[in-house]
Amino acid sequence: MLNFDFYNPTQIMFGKGRIADLDKVIPAGAKVLVLYGGGSIKQNGVFDQVMSALGARSITEFSGIEPNPSYETLMQAVESVKKNQIDFLLAVGGGSVIDGTKFVAAASLFDGADSWAILEKGGRNVTQALPFGSVLTLPATGSEMNNGGVVTRKSIKAKMAFSSRHCFPKFSILDPTTTFTLPMRQVGNGAVDAYVHVMEQYMTYPVNSPVQDRFAEGLLKTLIEEGPKALSNPADYDIRANLMWCATMALNGVISTGVPQDWATHMIGHELTALHGIDHAQTLAIVLPSMLRIRKEGKRAKLLQYAERVWDLRDGSEDSRIDQAINMTQDFFEQMGVKTRLGDYQLNADHIPPILAALETHRMVAIGEKRDVTLDVSRQVLELSL
Amino acid sequence: MLNFDFYNPTQIMFGKGRIADLDKVIPAGAKVLVLYGGGSIKQNGVFDQVMSALGARSITEFSGIEPNPSYETLMQAVESVKKNQIDFLLAVGGGSVIDGTKFVAAASLFDGADSWAILEKGGRNVTQALPFGSVLTLPATGSEMNNGGVVTRKSIKAKMAFSSRHCFPKFSILDPTTTFTLPMRQVGNGAVDAYVHVMEQYMTYPVNSPVQDRFAEGLLKTLIEEGPKALSNPADYDIRANLMWCATMALNGVISTGVPQDWATHMIGHELTALHGIDHAQTLAIVLPSMLRIRKEGKRAKLLQYAERVWDLRDGSEDSRIDQAINMTQDFFEQMGVKTRLGDYQLNADHIPPILAALETHRMVAIGEKRDVTLDVSRQVLELSL
Repeated sequence: MLNFDFYNPTQIMFGKGRIADLDKVIPAGAKVLVLYGGGSIKQNGVFDQVMSALGARSITEFSGIEPNPSYETLMQAVESVKKNQIDFLLAVGGGSVIDGTKFVAAASLFDGADSWAILEKGGRNVTQALPFGSVLTLPATGSEMNNGGVVTRKSIKAKMAFSSRHCFPKFSILDPTTTFTLPMRQVGNGAVDAYVHVMEQYMTYPVNSPVQDRFAEGLLKTLIEEGPKALSNPADYDIRANLMWCATMALNGVISTGVPQDWATHMIGHELTALHGIDHAQTLAIVLPSMLRIRKEGKRAKLLQYAERVWDLRDGSEDSRIDQAINMTQDFFEQMGVKTRLGDYQLNADHIPPILAALETHRMVAIGEKRDVTLDVSRQVLELSL
Repeated sequence: MLNFDFYNPTQIMFGKGRIADLDKVIPAGAKVLVLYGGGSIKQNGVFDQVMSALGARSITEFSGIEPNPSYETLMQAVESVKKNQIDFLLAVGGGSVIDGTKFVAAASLFDGADSWAILEKGGRNVTQALPFGSVLTLPATGSEMNNGGVVTRKSIKAKMAFSSRHCFPKFSILDPTTTFTLPMRQVGNGAVDAYVHVMEQYMTYPVNSPVQDRFAEGLLKTLIEEGPKALSNPADYDIRANLMWCATMALNGVISTGVPQDWATHMIGHELTALHGIDHAQTLAIVLPSMLRIRKEGKRAKLLQYAERVWDLRDGSEDSRIDQAINMTQDFFEQMGVKTRLGDYQLNADHIPPILAALETHRMVAIGEKRDVTLDVSRQVLELSL
């Protein structure tokens, strides 16, 4: 096991009816900015529940945080914070709204002249942030219980990540009933996103970490079992609750303790989103299967463990078990309604060079757990995903 | 899944050489009280590492915190805190030292006339506590990453638990090398303690919580694999690291999210320790197997799952699989050097009525996940453990 630090002070309030408890966790005199996305929370009753729980507090709204939240939009929220003397932020939505709120929390108190520097430094220059909480309505990114976010700057087509010890939500409310009315595309994307998060922390090389491995495998098996059920029984509470808790546990730091991490799939995926607007989870579904095939040798021991423990593959040659496990992974993504080929998104070989150029611009030229995913490896991965 | 709250702000600093990092997490101007037990830390080099890391800080020592820390001893530490204007506590040791330090942290700032009230109210009357951290040297109780403790009042032979949101360690340093020189009795006890902690949160009835179940099963399987290895290879880093992380994860709140909990084995075990001075883990090893046998019907579904997933028992009748799984559990405790019969500790049927009387005094007359463990059930359990 590798040395590690683990710190995660976010309070999780999980279950039916928990939105009413906002009243207990936001200071009574707070001036609250409520941040949300496209307005679905106004149709499904979540917005009304939030407003009712906030009671007499001073409330300002900021709507329109888009999927892959943009720097341009978020800086308008920062202006609202300053203009309205906001002292507490409440994100209501999915990972994009929560990621965006983290950035607003940090940028509102940022010392530098230009808040884009937060993204350029990956958040290492954040020394304080406004307190914020979240009401999660889309289980996927895990943003509700970690300190990281991803922000896109439209003007330069850049999608950049940041994190800071100051950017943990004070609390996150996870009420599975808020997810009953999600479009199926978002349900599928959410399960795939959580799945690939686990894979980025699990599918590397063995370091004798049986607890972390079994936790990761437990999340993967649960996603495989529960994901398809959520598509066919959208209003089943337990299925939604299990998916929601999987997505949170997939990226709250527990399964990454003491193990190497990959994240090459995410780095390539980010460029696909930035350049072509493909959903985040779709990019992961495109890249991961090819990534595993191309890097089979480096990941052999873990791929064999994955084949046996997650997919129950015990017979046949090593290579056939590995190939079968990767195929079953890809089939699972397709089963969740997430297409896994570049061609499915109208991209062809001509689109690969600009993706590689973007990776180079963002210095993603030696990524993965062994820093051996060069631009040439990324090219092979993308070619295999055509 | 049941509704739940999860909150755990303790920072874990895990790995070889981490004691030196105390310097980063204790304020430079702190007046530190270092609390420890019987002095083994002075023989194995841990004390020297701690002192070296604390550097020029003002340090007061408080030694002699005993296994099952006593109220009488801890109140002397509270006096030292007041006399020396201590503002930071550092526990160096195992669960007893850390539990004791939590109590000292709360009692030092307690408003009431008599700090015993903290135990009588289970900590609900704690409104503040001194900040404290820990250097863990004995993986077992999980106290390094939770907010609870157990304190014994010798004068009235009472062993009482308390917890408070204010009693999380600010940090805990887990360096597996500090455990290389532990006596085998403590290694065995530690693994059994962690195992039974998991069982108290897992072995109840199904509530459709596959993530929590798989995490619990992952911890149990790892303890079964790694525990015996630690007895035969005491200086193997990875084995010790895995045991240490199991013990922490067993009781930091992660596996109890959204599931019912039992704790009847612990309640009876506490009386055995209070009345007869039997090691905590030994009491759990005595009580748990009989507890499972007596309550087989109420726990049938989970016992079958346990038999299959933890012990790989798939053949034979349901009852034979359950019986075999309980026997294998008991054998594992014995394999770890922890005796599982009251007779092994020179106790016989005459000792049972006073134990039941103590349970009654402490209002432990309807315990377990369904509150159906009456004094009569406890009597049956103890009789079966003779």
